[in-house]
Amino acid sequence: MFVLGIDPGLSRCGYGLVAGAGDRSTRPGGVTAVTAGVLETDPRAALPERLCLLRDELRRLMAEHRPDVVAVERVFFQVNARTAMSVGQASGLALAEAAAAGAEVAQYTSNEVKQALAAWGAADKAQVRRMVATVLGLAAVPGPPDVADALALAVCHLFAAPVRRAVAEARR
Amino acid sequence: MFVLGIDPGLSRCGYGLVAGAGDRSTRPGGVTAVTAGVLETDPRAALPERLCLLRDELRRLMAEHRPDVVAVERVFFQVNARTAMSVGQASGLALAEAAAAGAEVAQYTSNEVKQALAAWGAADKAQVRRMVATVLGLAAVPGPPDVADALALAVCHLFAAPVRRAVAEARR
Repeated sequence: MFVLGIDPGLSRCGYGLVAGAGDRSTRPGGVTAVTAGVLETDPRAALPERLCLLRDELRRLMAEHRPDVVAVERVFFQVNARTAMSVGQASGLALAEAAAAGAEVAQYTSNEVKQALAAWGAADKAQVRRMVATVLGLAAVPGPPDVADALALAVCHLFAAPVRRAVAEARR
Repeated sequence: MFVLGIDPGLSRCGYGLVAGAGDRSTRPGGVTAVTAGVLETDPRAALPERLCLLRDELRRLMAEHRPDVVAVERVFFQVNARTAMSVGQASGLALAEAAAAGAEVAQYTSNEVKQALAAWGAADKAQVRRMVATVLGLAAVPGPPDVADALALAVCHLFAAPVRRAVAEARR
């Protein structure tokens, strides 16, 4: 199973593709990073053109890698209203393009990612990123931060999805 | 010149296509409503599917009417953070699809729309909507409100754009 994590943003949108083996991916050894990077748009360009470019890049990414699942960070309002709006706009594009590509779409808050990877809520972002490196068997923390966060979303899905399914089945 | 106004929203996204004659459209008689309506998505459906459907509908709208300009309401954060996020996501799709369709894209705040149409800042939404009806030569206020607001955005562009151009030229 291929999971594409997306850390939405207009200036920088991180992505990370992780390969797991379904339920068995809960074993750290069963998860590997396939590719990762950052989609960037020029802050000097007009907003509609930047969103259009990001849309095209996201579409290209889905077409190239055909992920089974796309895990997008669930964003909330932040202190900086200007940034929050563009993050919301970028997340809208990511969710729409993922659904259009026929992928299953999951959303996780940064807290859910933290709990899935670090097992305690008080972990900071740096600790979560080190856990990503450990789980994926990487020698160093992947960078830049947008990439580490996108990979963390994908790993979170592989860890959290089996638990979600088990809970859903137990409720039936 | 055809201007498509869009009042972005996830459950209800208003649109209104107005035909004007460039600078001459500042005369009320020179502006007419061509078509208007509301794009709706089912609140019971999953968010990615709703955004994908809205994306497809917006694309269809641009392809069918080929507007010269798309005027999208510039949204800010509201009291209801949940609504504001989905409005932000919907606006991101509208801006990206408008740019992808090759249209010029303009954004106006509701205050700018109010000032362009009602000429005084204290006008309420109902007064702005009555002005839309008057300018477009309609017997009644167009409804529902999403439609009236979308038409107001298009009319605002036809009124405001010549002033913007004149100011830009005067600065040269």
